Amino acid sequence: MAKMSKIILTDTTLRDGNHTVSHQFSPDDVAKVALGLQGAGIDLIEIGHGDGLTGSSINYGFSKYDDFSTIKAAAEVLTTSKLTVLLLPGIGTVKALEQAHKYGAKAVRVATHVTEADVSAQHIKAAKEMGLFTVGFLMMSHMTDVDRLVEEALKMESYGADVVYVTDSAGAMVPSQVAEKVAALKNNLKVPIGHHAHNNLGCAIANNLAAIDAGATYVDSSLMGLGAGAGNTSTETLIAVLNKMKHDHRGDLYKAMDVSKDILVPILESKGLHLSTNHDSMMLGYAGVYSSFLLHSRRASERFDVDVRDILLELGKRKVVGGQEDWIIDIAHGLSTR
Amino acid sequence: MAKMSKIILTDTTLRDGNHTVSHQFSPDDVAKVALGLQGAGIDLIEIGHGDGLTGSSINYGFSKYDDFSTIKAAAEVLTTSKLTVLLLPGIGTVKALEQAHKYGAKAVRVATHVTEADVSAQHIKAAKEMGLFTVGFLMMSHMTDVDRLVEEALKMESYGADVVYVTDSAGAMVPSQVAEKVAALKNNLKVPIGHHAHNNLGCAIANNLAAIDAGATYVDSSLMGLGAGAGNTSTETLIAVLNKMKHDHRGDLYKAMDVSKDILVPILESKGLHLSTNHDSMMLGYAGVYSSFLLHSRRASERFDVDVRDILLELGKRKVVGGQEDWIIDIAHGLSTR
Repeated sequence: MAKMSKIILTDTTLRDGNHTVSHQFSPDDVAKVALGLQGAGIDLIEIGHGDGLTGSSINYGFSKYDDFSTIKAAAEVLTTSKLTVLLLPGIGTVKALEQAHKYGAKAVRVATHVTEADVSAQHIKAAKEMGLFTVGFLMMSHMTDVDRLVEEALKMESYGADVVYVTDSAGAMVPSQVAEKVAALKNNLKVPIGHHAHNNLGCAIANNLAAIDAGATYVDSSLMGLGAGAGNTSTETLIAVLNKMKHDHRGDLYKAMDVSKDILVPILESKGLHLSTNHDSMMLGYAGVYSSFLLHSRRASERFDVDVRDILLELGKRKVVGGQEDWIIDIAHGLSTR
Repeated sequence: MAKMSKIILTDTTLRDGNHTVSHQFSPDDVAKVALGLQGAGIDLIEIGHGDGLTGSSINYGFSKYDDFSTIKAAAEVLTTSKLTVLLLPGIGTVKALEQAHKYGAKAVRVATHVTEADVSAQHIKAAKEMGLFTVGFLMMSHMTDVDRLVEEALKMESYGADVVYVTDSAGAMVPSQVAEKVAALKNNLKVPIGHHAHNNLGCAIANNLAAIDAGATYVDSSLMGLGAGAGNTSTETLIAVLNKMKHDHRGDLYKAMDVSKDILVPILESKGLHLSTNHDSMMLGYAGVYSSFLLHSRRASERFDVDVRDILLELGKRKVVGGQEDWIIDIAHGLSTR
C-alpha cells in the first residue's frame, strides 16, 4: 500500500480527448483548457493529435491545426504544469520531438505496444538528452502476462524513462488485473509506476485506485472522461475519489469541474458536440447524499447565492436523511453569512 | 475469496430505471423488457415505481400506470425468473404487498435506511408468511460504520430475510469501502450477501466486483445502467466483466445487449429519451482489441453477414494488433463458413 505517496496527475483531454473531436482542438482551445487545468493543479498536461506527434495523416485522421502551433499556444500559458507530448515511434520521429521541445514541450510520453519496448530506445534516449521529463508508455498492457510486462518495462527504464506506465489502451482490464501488473512493476523497477485507463468496461476510475493501492503514483485522466473508445477516467471524478480516499495530490475539484463546465463544454458545443458533464450526480456521490436533495439544494443555492456544491457537502457532513429537507434552507442560509 | 460461488443477478431496469422515465413504463413495456431479461438469464427481475410499492404520490412522482397492472403484465410472461417488487416501509404497506403477491410477485426487497432496520420487521415477517423470497435492503450503507451495519443486517436476518444487501443508494462508495462492508456482513451473517451500486463516482461495476471478491453472491444492475442519480451498474457490462473473470452466473451477454438495443432503446425513444448504448466500446474492452478495429470489423460484418461481436472476440483471441487489419476479412470469412 502506498496510500500516502503523492499522486501525480496527468490530464490528457487535449491529446486522448482530441480523438473525440477528430483532432480539431485549435491553438486557442488548447491555450484556454491548458490554462484552466494548470489552475486546477494538474501536474502534466498532454496535448496534440490523439495518436501523438505527426499523427496527423490519412491513416490516423488529419488534425485541423499543426502540432507545433498548438504546442506553442500551450507553452505560452503554462508555467507550473508540465507541457507534455505523446510520441509513438513509427508515427512520430526524434526530429518531430526536437521541434516540439523547441516550441516548449517539457515532457514526452514515448509509447509502444506492450511487447515492443525495444523500439522506444532511441526516442527515450533522445528525449533525455533534450532534458525532457520522459515517460515510457506500454500500450495494450492487457495483452501480455506479468513476466513479459516486467521485462518490457525494465527495458524502458534502462533507456532512461523517468516513469513507466501500464497503459490499458482498450479498456480491457478490471481492478484486480491492474493491481497485479502494477505491483509487479513496482517490485521490479526503481522508477515510479503510472496507469492510464480507458472506461470500456466501466472500470477506469476503480482501475486507477487499484493501481495506486498497488504502488502507482502517476495516473491519467481527462475532463469529462474525453478520450478514445469509452473515454478515459474523468479528471473531476478522479479528484473527487482521491479526496475521498485522502490521497495527497495537487488537484482542485471545483476548479477542475469549472474548466469542464465553463471552458470545455462551450468548445465542444462550438464543434457540434453536445456532451453534458456528470457533475450533479458526481457531487451527490462525493457528498454522499441522496439524489432527491439535489433540486431543493439548487433552489436554496439560487435563493442564498451560495455554491450548490457547498450545500451538498454540508448535507453530507451532517448526515442528513430523507425527511430532513428543511435543513437545506438552514445550511444555505448559514453558508451565505460566512 | 468466493470466486466460484454462483452469482445471482437482479435486474432493476423496470424499478430503479423507472426513475429515468419518471415512472412511465407501461404494462406493455414491462412485459416486453421482463421477457427479454428472462431470456438473458436474469434471476430476479424487479419492477414498479422507483420508490417501490405505492410510491406513486405527490412526493415521489406519480406513476402513469398503477403498480398492479404492471405486476400482472410481468407475471404473465415470467416463468423462470423471479418477479420482484420493492417495498419501503412507510411508503408501501403490508396490504400493498399482499396485493402484489396476489398479482404474481414472487419476491420482495424490503428497504430501510441503513440505521433503521427495525422498521422492516413486520414487513419481512409478513413477506415470509406469504411465501415470498425476501431480501433485506440496507439503503445509504455508506452512512454508517461497519459495526452498526452488521448490527442492522443481523436484525433483518433475524426477521427472516433470505438475503441482506449493502445498498449504496447515493453511489458514494469506492471498491475498498464496499469490500470492507460486505466482508463484515459475510463474516457475521448466515444468509447470502448482496450489493446494489450506483455509478455517481464511476465505481459501480468495480464495486460489484469488490463485493463479489469479499463474498457477496447477489448483485444488482440495470440495462444501460438506467437508474436514479448516475444510474446503476449496466447489466450488459456486468455480464461481460463476470464472464471475463470466469464467475459462474446465468447471464447471457449477447441477449442482454439485444434487449437493450432492440427493446429498451425503442421504448425510451417513444418517451422522448434518446440514449445510446455503450455496446461498441464495451465490446472492444471485452474483446481486448483497439478501437481502430471497430470500423473495419463492422464493414466485414456486413459483407460476410456475421455478428460484429464475434469478429471482435476472435480478433481478441488471436491477439491481433495494429497493422494486421487484413486479418479481419479472414476472420469474418471464416466465421461465415462455420
